[in-house]
This record gives sequence, C-alpha cells and structure tokens, in this order.
Amino acid sequence: MSDVSDEARDFDRMWADLAPVGRDGRTGGYHRFAWTREDHTLREWFAGECARLGLDLTEDRFGNQWAWWGDPDREPGRGVVVGSHLDSVPDGGAFDGPLGVVSSLATVESLQRNGFRPTRPIAVVNFGDEEGARFGVACAGSRVITGALTADRALGLTDADGVSMGEALQRAGRSTDLGPDRETLSRVGAFVELHVEQGRALADLDPATSAVAVGTDIWPHGRWRIELPGAANHAGTTRIEDRDDALLKAAQVVLAARQQAERHGCVATVGRMSVQPNGINAVPAHVTTFLDARGSDADAVRSAVADVREVVGSLAGAMHEESWTPSTPFDADLSERVRRVLGGVPTLGTGAGHDAGILANAGVPTAMIFVRNPTGISHAPTEFAESADCHVGVRALTAVVADLAGEV
Amino acid sequence: MSDVSDEARDFDRMWADLAPVGRDGRTGGYHRFAWTREDHTLREWFAGECARLGLDLTEDRFGNQWAWWGDPDREPGRGVVVGSHLDSVPDGGAFDGPLGVVSSLATVESLQRNGFRPTRPIAVVNFGDEEGARFGVACAGSRVITGALTADRALGLTDADGVSMGEALQRAGRSTDLGPDRETLSRVGAFVELHVEQGRALADLDPATSAVAVGTDIWPHGRWRIELPGAANHAGTTRIEDRDDALLKAAQVVLAARQQAERHGCVATVGRMSVQPNGINAVPAHVTTFLDARGSDADAVRSAVADVREVVGSLAGAMHEESWTPSTPFDADLSERVRRVLGGVPTLGTGAGHDAGILANAGVPTAMIFVRNPTGISHAPTEFAESADCHVGVRALTAVVADLAGEV
Repeated sequence: MSDVSDEARDFDRMWADLAPVGRDGRTGGYHRFAWTREDHTLREWFAGECARLGLDLTEDRFGNQWAWWGDPDREPGRGVVVGSHLDSVPDGGAFDGPLGVVSSLATVESLQRNGFRPTRPIAVVNFGDEEGARFGVACAGSRVITGALTADRALGLTDADGVSMGEALQRAGRSTDLGPDRETLSRVGAFVELHVEQGRALADLDPATSAVAVGTDIWPHGRWRIELPGAANHAGTTRIEDRDDALLKAAQVVLAARQQAERHGCVATVGRMSVQPNGINAVPAHVTTFLDARGSDADAVRSAVADVREVVGSLAGAMHEESWTPSTPFDADLSERVRRVLGGVPTLGTGAGHDAGILANAGVPTAMIFVRNPTGISHAPTEFAESADCHVGVRALTAVVADLAGEV
Repeated sequence: MSDVSDEARDFDRMWADLAPVGRDGRTGGYHRFAWTREDHTLREWFAGECARLGLDLTEDRFGNQWAWWGDPDREPGRGVVVGSHLDSVPDGGAFDGPLGVVSSLATVESLQRNGFRPTRPIAVVNFGDEEGARFGVACAGSRVITGALTADRALGLTDADGVSMGEALQRAGRSTDLGPDRETLSRVGAFVELHVEQGRALADLDPATSAVAVGTDIWPHGRWRIELPGAANHAGTTRIEDRDDALLKAAQVVLAARQQAERHGCVATVGRMSVQPNGINAVPAHVTTFLDARGSDADAVRSAVADVREVVGSLAGAMHEESWTPSTPFDADLSERVRRVLGGVPTLGTGAGHDAGILANAGVPTAMIFVRNPTGISHAPTEFAESADCHVGVRALTAVVADLAGEV
C-alpha cells in the first residue's frame, strides 16, 4: 500500500532513522537498555527531532524527556501530552514504545504544517527505562516521578553486571538526584499514549474494522517468586526412589500454572527459571522460578494463583508475592472523548503494563490508543504492525490532539 | 568409635589437613576446580606428603601427579598404582576423590612403617580435573594421557568465564604440550582406585557386612542435549491458546525422563536447563536442556532414552547424543584377587564415571574398592562416610597393595 500523505512520509523518515539503533543483525531484535550507548543515541535523536520542530525540551527528576509546544506553566494543568518510550526488552521488537514516540512527533509535525494554533500547551514525552530490561523494574521513569518507586530503591537496583542505577547515572554524567516531580506532573492535563497492540484482539476482528482501538484498563497482574527445594545428589548413583529432585517439582509447577490459567480464564507464565547446581550429572538441589499472572478478572487471576500455590505447597515449596497491581482503569471521560473523535473504534483492556498506567494511578487523566498487530507477537524480533496501520495511528493521534488542544 | 591404630592416625591427620581447602563456609561444600588456586594448594600438599614419604614425584603429559616408591622403569609394566583425585564438583563433598588419595598415602605410610619391602614398584597417583567441573569434560586427566581426549579438544575447552584450558595452563605457568603418555601408562601393572560409594547399596545391607565392596563395572551411560523451540512473546498480552512456550515443553520432557527411568529400571536425570530469554514477563522462546541416563542394563537405558526422544519429537524438539559409553568392566582377575584378599566382600557396579574406568578402557588392569556411604548422598556438601569405615578402607587398600606388591 502506498501512502504518500505528508504525515506518512514524516513517520516513515523518522522510523527509518531509528531502525538500526541497537538492532541485533543476527536476530533482527533490539537491545536498547537504560543509560547504555544505544539509549543515549535514542535520547539524542529525540532531542534533535524536538529541536527541529521548535519544541522546548526539559528533563524531569528521573531524566524523562518532555518537549513542549507552548508554555506549560502559562496555565498549569492544561497540557496535552502524547508519547511513549524508546527502550526495549532484550531482543525486543521495533514497535513497542518507538511507535508511540514517532507517531507523537509526526502528530506535532502534522499539526504545525497545517497551521494548527493550540489553545493548550502540547508535549511529546519520551519516558526512560519503561521496560526495566536492565534494572528489573518496569516503568522506572514514570514510577520515580510519581513517587511509586523511591529514589533510594531505584538508585540501588542493579543490572546483570552488578552495576547499580546510581552508578550507571554517574557513568553517564547524570545527576542522581531522582525523586517525585510534582512540577512536571502538574503540567499534564491529559496524557494519551499510542502503543502497538501486544495481543491480537484487533487482528481477530473483521479486517474492515478500524486499525486502532481505545484502551479501557490495564488488567490486574502480579508476580510471584517460587522456591522449590530438593537434595543435591549424584545423577549416576542415586536411585530414582531416593531422589528429591527440585526440577521435577518445577516441571509440575509449570504444568499446573498452564492448567490453572486455562481453567480460570486468565494468563499465567513461568518465564524465568534458575536451577542449582545446574550440572548435567547432578540431581537438581534447588529451583527458583517466577509466576506472572494476569487477566481481565482479578478474582480469576487470584483463584488460578491460589491453585498453583497449593501445588507448590504440596511439593514442600514456597511462593512469595513480589507484586500485585489491581486493575488500572484509564480516565473514562478522556477515553470516551478519544473514542468519539475516532468515530467509535473498538475498546480493549490490556495485560501489559505501561507508563500510562502509572500516570493513571497517580491521578493524571490518561488514555491509550492501540494499533493493530497482525500476529499479536510482541517482545520479540517478529513484533510487527503494517505500515498502513501505523499511518492510521498517526492520523488518529493527530485528530485526538487537535481536538484536545483546540478547545478554548 | 575410637580407632587409635597408626594408619587411622595417619589418615585422620591428612584428612584434617585437607578439610579447609576450597570449603564454602556457608554450605560446607567444596569448590576445587582444575588449575585454580585451590587446585594448586592441593597439588602442593600432595607433593609435600609424597616428599615426606620419600616418593619420587613425576608428572605426565597432562599434569597428573605420580609418586613412585621404587623405580618404575626397572621392570616396566609391573607398577602397583593406587590413588584417585582431589578436585571436586561445585559445592561437592569432602570424600569423592580425596578419600582415595588420602587412603593411598596412608597405605604407603603403613607399609613403610611395618618394614614392607615391595617386590614391585608402588605409586600413588593424583589425577587432575576428574570432575570436569571447570571445563565440562570429566576425567580429563586420564582421558588425555590415554588418548581418549585429544590435546586440541582439551586445550580448547572453555570455562564459564570463557577461559580455555590452554589459557588456564599458561596462566598457571604450565606447559600446554598435552597428549597421550604411553611411557607413563606402560609403567602401570595394576591400578586400584578406592572411592566413597556414591549410592547406598552397601548401606542397605546388614550393618554387620563389610564396610567396603569391590567394583564390578561402570554402568553404560550417556548424555543427550535437548533443544526445545518456542516463540518469544509477551506474558501479559498473548492468549494462552496462541502460545508456543518452550518451558512448557521442557516440563513435559522432565516428567517423561522420570517416568521412563522408572518404567525401564534405570536412572535418568535432567539436571541442567537454560531458558531463553529467561524473563519473568516473557513467554520462553527456547530451552536447552540435558538428559543423563545410566543403568546396569544398556538395553534398558537405550529404551528409556528412546521413549524420551519420542516425547521430544512430539514437541517439535531435537535430541542430540553428546556421549555414549558402554559398560566398562573392571579386570576380572585383578578384581577377584582383591576380593579374595578382602575376605569375600560384596561386589557392586556403579553409575558413576571414574579415572579407573578410563584406564580400564585403555587396557590397564584396573579394580575399584568402594567405601560405605550411609546416606548414599554424593556430589553434595552432606556426602559422608563414617570415620571407622574410612579406616577399614585404608586397611583394605593396604592389604591389597601388600598382596600385589609382595608377589615375586
């Protein structure tokens, strides 16, 4: 499909700029982690585009980048903010994050080209460390400025090489004076995050249906650490009946998690596992593994987790709740207004966390727009959205910002 | 039990010398890996004890230490060699290896104290890198000098930090001129390795039965690498029915290995597993894992492995045979002679590999003596043998060497 509109060209040019940054030539996946060389390249690229558009770039008390069109302090609390993030999970896709940032920049460019005169200040935001790929906590940038993550805890998080976030900031020549940033948040009257869909709810609808949807809420979700004990022993000389094999227990937990998710109608994933001593000829002495569970219905998720916990207990293991986040609804009025502007597109909840969810929890009126993902694959090199659908997303976001920032 | 015989005192003193070397104060387990500081400490200790006993220490073309009492080249092929190894698996026990070395030194000391005049040369050997804990190949020392492991392959093996064995040797200031050593092997007329039992066959007999047994053979055993593919995806947004979860497949393989081992009467272990990308919120995209299978009956092991292979195949995975070693019988005449000297003690096969097995495969007349292990636990900090049983082992080995090296 050939789409030669101006906003499509703007989008495509910026998209091509980003394509090589942090890309693994072998897998085609991206490695863009907080405060690494790749991250700095992306931040500089963002600053350059904002300068080109004549926006005023500021950083908040985490280092998230806010680029303003108009004075945000003229009428505090009226800012219309769009954006997302540029970092990735390990070997992640090109769309998760960058689609929202590039669409937002293309939106501003389109409005400017068409002589739009905003009655409210507009900003494009690039949130830092959304994926938590390096330091383990997702949405670190929005969590720190809203106070959901304390500076002490953030600075003390360490990466796989034992480098703390505090050290990483210092190495990057940055301030370690992180913390809640009420001044920045007070400028935001509405935040609209556009994001590639990470499932295939839209793809499963009639192809003639809109390529975009409006978010309703972020599903309740939690993480549990599971410790399964065993007894170290020799793989050749220990009789089967004398073994206490921790990995055999872990296998039962993995299967139980799947069964209970199916039974209760939610999703459950055992994605990370560490086996001790992890020797080919050693009976596993201990397994540490994690359960991630989410769903539209909190009770269903809780029931599935309780059933897995029963299996873990029957295996002499222990299960620790690392986090539990209830359902996060987006702002009903704002979401309805977005949907009205877009002509009654579908709505959908999401099992993924986003900076939009963190801001919504902090009381900022927030909405999300999702762009169709034909395979539903995300957090993987094959994550994809059709070019035409991306352009539909840019036009949708442009219409929404024009509507919000055009009000008197 | 108080045992104040001279050989018990000798044994206890040397045993106490070794106790702190490479011991993890937290777990009580040992970390003694080839060409590390701990390994050098142990080698120096061995050299010191041999010097004290007036033995002539030589090293072969791997670096295995041979300490001779009498000239081994006076009558080649007549040497009576005892010994074992001093290295350990990660967080291993105190007995696996050192029991044989210390018992061998105590044997020489006892014979010397009693004025024994050997008619054949006697040696104590300390084999290097028996466990393969650092570079991944077990019995590297005996394999290299018998030609079962080529120098090129040995030197190219790498540890977890990417250091090759060749580099490790250079850093230790050692020669990298490894290779088959026919001169050393030609000196050996009989090799008797004393070792802690790593199962509980002896412990399950009447306690009044001998604390030692004579080995019959090393069970047939093999290793298989299993590759299980999946598809990377987001743990929150991917519907259960859309997932291709590699860890879910691995769980089925782990359970199948146990079931087939029970069904066919052998042992099978899945002890090592690597999950990609190993993220809490990522559907596992790939699992690499290993199957270790052994048993007294090669057909039973082969059948169990074939059944596991069928499960792997049904999950779109692949299974690669990394090694297969048929049953290794010890020398029948030598073993019968050892058993006669010891007064008709029990015999047993073993599922563990030993340098004795490598030498037996290379045509060296070889026998093994096992010392009772009350729990059967091995390759773990709680590996144990009663002091009284260790002393019985020293007396047994002394009687065997006296018999072999006393013949005219």
